[in-house]
Amino acid sequence: MAEEKLPTRAENYAEWYNQLVLKSELADYAPVRGCMVVRPYGWALWENITACLDKEFKATGHVNAAFPTLIPMSFFEKEKEHVEGFSPELAVVTHGGGEKLEEPLVVRPTSETIIGYMYSKWVKSWRDLPILIVQWGSVLRWELRTKLFLRTAEFYWHEGHTAHSTAAEAKEEMYRILDIYEKFCREEAAIPVFKGTKSDTERFAGAQVTTSIEAMMWDKRALQSGTSHYFGQNFAKAFEIQYLDKSNNLQFCETTSWAISSRIIGAIIMVHSDDQGLVLPPRIAPIQTVIVPIFRSDAEKSAVMEAADRIFLELKAAGIRVKMDDREEVTPGFKYNDWEMRGVPLRLEIGPKDLEKNSVALARRDKPGREGKIFVPQANLAATVADLLVEIQNSLLAKATAFRDSNIHDPKDMAELANVIQDGWAFSYWCESRECEAKVKEETKATTRNIPFDQPEGEGNCIVCGKPSKRKVFFAKAY
Amino acid sequence: MAEEKLPTRAENYAEWYNQLVLKSELADYAPVRGCMVVRPYGWALWENITACLDKEFKATGHVNAAFPTLIPMSFFEKEKEHVEGFSPELAVVTHGGGEKLEEPLVVRPTSETIIGYMYSKWVKSWRDLPILIVQWGSVLRWELRTKLFLRTAEFYWHEGHTAHSTAAEAKEEMYRILDIYEKFCREEAAIPVFKGTKSDTERFAGAQVTTSIEAMMWDKRALQSGTSHYFGQNFAKAFEIQYLDKSNNLQFCETTSWAISSRIIGAIIMVHSDDQGLVLPPRIAPIQTVIVPIFRSDAEKSAVMEAADRIFLELKAAGIRVKMDDREEVTPGFKYNDWEMRGVPLRLEIGPKDLEKNSVALARRDKPGREGKIFVPQANLAATVADLLVEIQNSLLAKATAFRDSNIHDPKDMAELANVIQDGWAFSYWCESRECEAKVKEETKATTRNIPFDQPEGEGNCIVCGKPSKRKVFFAKAY
Repeated sequence: MAEEKLPTRAENYAEWYNQLVLKSELADYAPVRGCMVVRPYGWALWENITACLDKEFKATGHVNAAFPTLIPMSFFEKEKEHVEGFSPELAVVTHGGGEKLEEPLVVRPTSETIIGYMYSKWVKSWRDLPILIVQWGSVLRWELRTKLFLRTAEFYWHEGHTAHSTAAEAKEEMYRILDIYEKFCREEAAIPVFKGTKSDTERFAGAQVTTSIEAMMWDKRALQSGTSHYFGQNFAKAFEIQYLDKSNNLQFCETTSWAISSRIIGAIIMVHSDDQGLVLPPRIAPIQTVIVPIFRSDAEKSAVMEAADRIFLELKAAGIRVKMDDREEVTPGFKYNDWEMRGVPLRLEIGPKDLEKNSVALARRDKPGREGKIFVPQANLAATVADLLVEIQNSLLAKATAFRDSNIHDPKDMAELANVIQDGWAFSYWCESRECEAKVKEETKATTRNIPFDQPEGEGNCIVCGKPSKRKVFFAKAY
Repeated sequence: MAEEKLPTRAENYAEWYNQLVLKSELADYAPVRGCMVVRPYGWALWENITACLDKEFKATGHVNAAFPTLIPMSFFEKEKEHVEGFSPELAVVTHGGGEKLEEPLVVRPTSETIIGYMYSKWVKSWRDLPILIVQWGSVLRWELRTKLFLRTAEFYWHEGHTAHSTAAEAKEEMYRILDIYEKFCREEAAIPVFKGTKSDTERFAGAQVTTSIEAMMWDKRALQSGTSHYFGQNFAKAFEIQYLDKSNNLQFCETTSWAISSRIIGAIIMVHSDDQGLVLPPRIAPIQTVIVPIFRSDAEKSAVMEAADRIFLELKAAGIRVKMDDREEVTPGFKYNDWEMRGVPLRLEIGPKDLEKNSVALARRDKPGREGKIFVPQANLAATVADLLVEIQNSLLAKATAFRDSNIHDPKDMAELANVIQDGWAFSYWCESRECEAKVKEETKATTRNIPFDQPEGEGNCIVCGKPSKRKVFFAKAY
């Protein structure tokens, strides 16, 4: 219930975020350290997100499967960088069925190891390749500082794991997935992202190449919103994933993995929402339009509800996710605040005056107040609503893109970089050395986000050491 | 790959089952004791099952959500019967992030406790009721003797958890769900089941009433295929799920829970399949029709593939889940065996002779050999195939129903019961005492399956003690 207002973003952004997640009933704190409960409204949003991605994965030849939640501890020790990366974050099962286990089992923090083990059993010949498997589920990493959706011990995701016969094919897969991620963010979540390569220090534990999509939040911090990794033969060697090629020679596979997690919901919140609450892009909103009927007497009620019910069915038949709010124990004003808090893109109000005029009022969530309220005829209403939802979707993306682009700077030196990074990103030439990266982090708290694929022509000089540099990188404070 | 034949069911039913699951690539053994990997073909089947059920749940007002995988150990101790039932089966996390935990966490074996805890936070007033939440995911019970799909340490399921203001409403919910389960089994899985009430000894740990659906497998053993429980106020009291009623009095909720698990895939296998492999009901089969093009020369190939591709697109456009098997490294005969092993309901063969006659051959999986093979015109093929898939679906249900009904007996005394139970079920009057139930189990190894809702008129005498009894029960050996 949305009786109390949120703090404004300017007042206290972190608290605005936490309260928004709770009040909009997306999620709640769980009675398990660092874990969350994704409430029905949040899960409906996640289901819409997963449906979009699942469709794209299947259209590109991927299939889903399920591997165990528990992984033998020894599996993690087979890939050196992987075990170093994940050891501090593991939750360990030591007892089962009342007895101490001979070998501890780990609640999966990610599944490269156990999936690699199974691939080594399944792959025999070039005919078995590629394997393109996706697993939807949750994983657990023992995070110390947690925040709903953004960083929780258990989180929800898909993890894609593929095995190929050649490096070229595996890399192509890594980029194909990143394209799917970028497209999903742009078209469905209305979030513009940059595709690029992570620096060596920011790579996934065990990967040869990590690519990411990076988005800018309202407070101008960056959020890594999805990653796609190329492992070369690292995991294939650790788990002996081998195949006989067409000349009957035994070869190691080339593998990839990739993921978008429930963290993306954090991005959706922080990119679009405002001081009144959540703002959801229509294409993934659990409820696209809410109908609020307005009446005072029983006579008004009967006339208004008849029209409201007819409109409800008309919108539903047109494929619009519509909800009728016919609660009688709360006022229309309460309902407006309630659905604004939950980010429903469009509110449809209908009362006695509207009946007289054969019209309804439509209020856009993304433009609160008078600016976003219009009166339209009841005739052809489904088409009017559908068009307006498209307009809202496009408007959210345009707004987010303009905001992001106006907050990316091109500082001329370290001093200016340190300055702009307080309230924006820097897009600067960098020599790609760990030393210069570490210096920026130390002096500004900004990390390299990614080296975008889309680069300006020509070369420049490293913003830190001044050496000639071929590529620019995004520096930003990040979640 | 289906190079090797299965043992026949008559030879070795258990081994037939295991090999069928592996060779059809539904699932594989995992490198974690008692766990399985559900392979893409098996998971596609599970996705079709979940889609059917999810649709029904949503149509009846249920919503999905996600609760943590790990549950504090102390939660289990709040409901006495519940902790006694589950304690021996728990997998326990004792370490997290490199440190010993103050309180151990349990990998959920079922989620009544943690969901009950959250409901106690969310429910304040009668306005918040009912809560109708479903969670899709996996749970873990430390089983000693495991069998793929039928009994594995980790298994996949949905668990519904609902809270109501009155006992009548909660019981209505329990029955509503059982109706959904029965309908799903009959209409989608082509499995006839009996709805009924479990005996006190077979009740779920913590429930006041457990209802189930029970199915008969090919070896005439019973499989409990879904359960729906009414808890009364047991969990509401243990977790303080309370609401203010309309008169402002604090009341405890009445709760239910219910589940169908990946075990249902075991039922589908054992009810329909044969010595050649899996037989899947068309409505849930991942592939409904496989096209096998037949050619010897390049000229033949080009003509045949042109027609085959056209037919593929025609079937796909008609909404049929169709697969083209255009592998060239294996023979058509190999492909026939391969798809028979995987239980694809219909095989469409097309070769040069069919082109001449403008026909194709259609081979039914449920009627192997000549009996199930027909030649039909290419004209209007999508409709022919769709009709045949419906006929196969109906035929599987009719066959399973006739088989089941012919193997249910009405023994006149204990001696005859002991005899018929060796190769069938007994449907007998029972006084509903634990003693008589235990005696049947001891002497015949049969347990009570359920007391079906659908009962004959009148009364009878307990098959064990002879006392007047109002209701009949199914006795059977069970998985």
